[in-house]
Amino acid sequence: MGISAKDRQYMRQVLELAALARGCTSPNPMVGAILVHGDQIIGQGFHEQSGHPHAEVMALRDAKANEHDVKGATLYCNLEPCNHEGKTPPCTETIIKSGISRVVAAMIDPNPMVCGSGLRRLRSAGIEVDCGVLEGEARRLNEAFITYHQLKRPFIIAKWAMTLDGRTSTDSGDSRWISNDESRRYAHEIRSCVDAVAVGVGTIFFDNPRLTVRLDSYKRRQPKRIIFDGFLRTPIGARCLDATGGHVILLCTDKAPQDRIERMRKAGHTVLVVPGRGRIIDIGAAMHQLAEAGIQSVLVEGGRQLHTALIRERLADKIVVFVGAQLVGGERPTSPLIDLGIQNMKGSIQLKNINFKSFGDNACIEGYVNLPPMPGNSHHF
Amino acid sequence: MGISAKDRQYMRQVLELAALARGCTSPNPMVGAILVHGDQIIGQGFHEQSGHPHAEVMALRDAKANEHDVKGATLYCNLEPCNHEGKTPPCTETIIKSGISRVVAAMIDPNPMVCGSGLRRLRSAGIEVDCGVLEGEARRLNEAFITYHQLKRPFIIAKWAMTLDGRTSTDSGDSRWISNDESRRYAHEIRSCVDAVAVGVGTIFFDNPRLTVRLDSYKRRQPKRIIFDGFLRTPIGARCLDATGGHVILLCTDKAPQDRIERMRKAGHTVLVVPGRGRIIDIGAAMHQLAEAGIQSVLVEGGRQLHTALIRERLADKIVVFVGAQLVGGERPTSPLIDLGIQNMKGSIQLKNINFKSFGDNACIEGYVNLPPMPGNSHHF
Repeated sequence: MGISAKDRQYMRQVLELAALARGCTSPNPMVGAILVHGDQIIGQGFHEQSGHPHAEVMALRDAKANEHDVKGATLYCNLEPCNHEGKTPPCTETIIKSGISRVVAAMIDPNPMVCGSGLRRLRSAGIEVDCGVLEGEARRLNEAFITYHQLKRPFIIAKWAMTLDGRTSTDSGDSRWISNDESRRYAHEIRSCVDAVAVGVGTIFFDNPRLTVRLDSYKRRQPKRIIFDGFLRTPIGARCLDATGGHVILLCTDKAPQDRIERMRKAGHTVLVVPGRGRIIDIGAAMHQLAEAGIQSVLVEGGRQLHTALIRERLADKIVVFVGAQLVGGERPTSPLIDLGIQNMKGSIQLKNINFKSFGDNACIEGYVNLPPMPGNSHHF
Repeated sequence: MGISAKDRQYMRQVLELAALARGCTSPNPMVGAILVHGDQIIGQGFHEQSGHPHAEVMALRDAKANEHDVKGATLYCNLEPCNHEGKTPPCTETIIKSGISRVVAAMIDPNPMVCGSGLRRLRSAGIEVDCGVLEGEARRLNEAFITYHQLKRPFIIAKWAMTLDGRTSTDSGDSRWISNDESRRYAHEIRSCVDAVAVGVGTIFFDNPRLTVRLDSYKRRQPKRIIFDGFLRTPIGARCLDATGGHVILLCTDKAPQDRIERMRKAGHTVLVVPGRGRIIDIGAAMHQLAEAGIQSVLVEGGRQLHTALIRERLADKIVVFVGAQLVGGERPTSPLIDLGIQNMKGSIQLKNINFKSFGDNACIEGYVNLPPMPGNSHHF
């Protein structure tokens, strides 16, 4: 039958439904589903959080609650339905039993346990299957989930704030505040949607951040707090170690003193000893270990050494830059990044899919260093 | 009678008319005029360029050409009508003779030769006068003209382009290009609207810019080219000295070798010897000399020493920053500004009236260091 404008229109609604659970579904992806019979939406739903029913099931329940017959209906969902037993039974079997006659998906599931098998199962049961509708938007929505499953590392966002003359602090190190209240509220919203917030130990000494989500009426879980700290110099009294925030993961090399490792572990924090040279952590190895610990997305808030390492190794996927409305000048190097080994503009790292926001007198510029990898070719299904 | 919503609506149209001549009127301001009788616009016009009729006269001619009677009409104009003989007769007398019964102006004329006397003359002739309608917008439109007449120096715009990591070049000095074609086109549009484009001699050595307006089908005059060059080291073969652009003004101190001064003058360029210490030009004194030479607005395109001096002395009125979509990193100080003597964020220079534009993947952030000074209180008239 092929993809129609109506298909795209329903898929857009599906994506909006899915996004309602932004920040709530990890380690699962955000998924929405709509059931259409004739020209009528007869059921809709989305995956609310891990352990709760999948979107397809929610949509079927919704249709049933309103006494709609789903036989012959079309199911729209932004991700291929699952074909494996997880915390919930496989959606494919539920769909087949329901009598749905067509399934339209935005993309295949990058999870190696699914990755096309769900759509194949549906097709083998005689259901018409189309895949690849609004795939770009769907991939953007679940960029963290896709990156995690395809690259076995977290999706990494590097964030900084700089003045209109490109500085992250005055010469004396003062940086409070470059961004305004509105910008910082948005930064906390980003924190609320990632699995973990990370900084280098230098930022602990300079800024002593709490690394918590502080938003009015915010009730959800706090993101984990990660500190890249080769020698494990983080003071036991650092704010980011207090009890009000998410679980703390300290990353150090085997050069970190054993007694400090013990003390941190006794205090209830996780210490991961990762490969490195001296106090310099192998950032790629560290990220793979974080992925093994189940962390799908990390917001890295500095400092410049950590940001530079992530960008140099092409591990930072997305950059979020706040530009304040002030000038500070200076003689010291207070730029957001240090040496990337780039000598001419043609060799610069060009960001893709740039997006602009403004918060009062602050600009916010977001862009991608890496675009999420393709989980196979969705259009083949 | 007081100011009505209709008055503001007509004034908005007046400002749009006035702006049609942007970049064409210097040393005159941009002025538009609309004649209204009852609820009908019976005539409109704007000042097209110096030496051409004033806006009020254009609007009266327009009404006459369409055989409208202006007796009892209201004249809207964004600047107080002139009361002195210039290249054209005083508008006040023309208005009085025409039988217009009310004049609504946005602001008084900051030119000391007018500065309220025009409105007083109209009122003494029995015409109802209101002033101060959309004054903020009107002042913004003629910010250069106001600054020039009130402060006896040009309106100064400082412009730079920086990467998303706040750098104006790579460590090797490469800066071509940080901004994209669309951004550079806008930068040329700004050039086309100022009396002069200026750089420090360092930028001549680094970038060797032409300092000309290069826009498709651009036919108007080229802005003057100003070089801040204490010792007069600008090479005779520099691109900015070629014949294709505007007249060149070189600023040096009395430490510049006399033979170089002579050579530049023989080549047809203007050399202004201004106060300074060694090769360091007294930037405030230099700007006053440029004002005496009739320059009302200057776009300063770098380098960082000149920008820093202008901002430190609070001479830069407006800042235009292009932010490219790339990262370059670096170990050398390649920030847009050097030392401003600011130690903490509370002491930073906060820009006002921030405005955001985007050009493809580039952001453009504009803001004011100084707001144009008030030419008396327009609401008193």
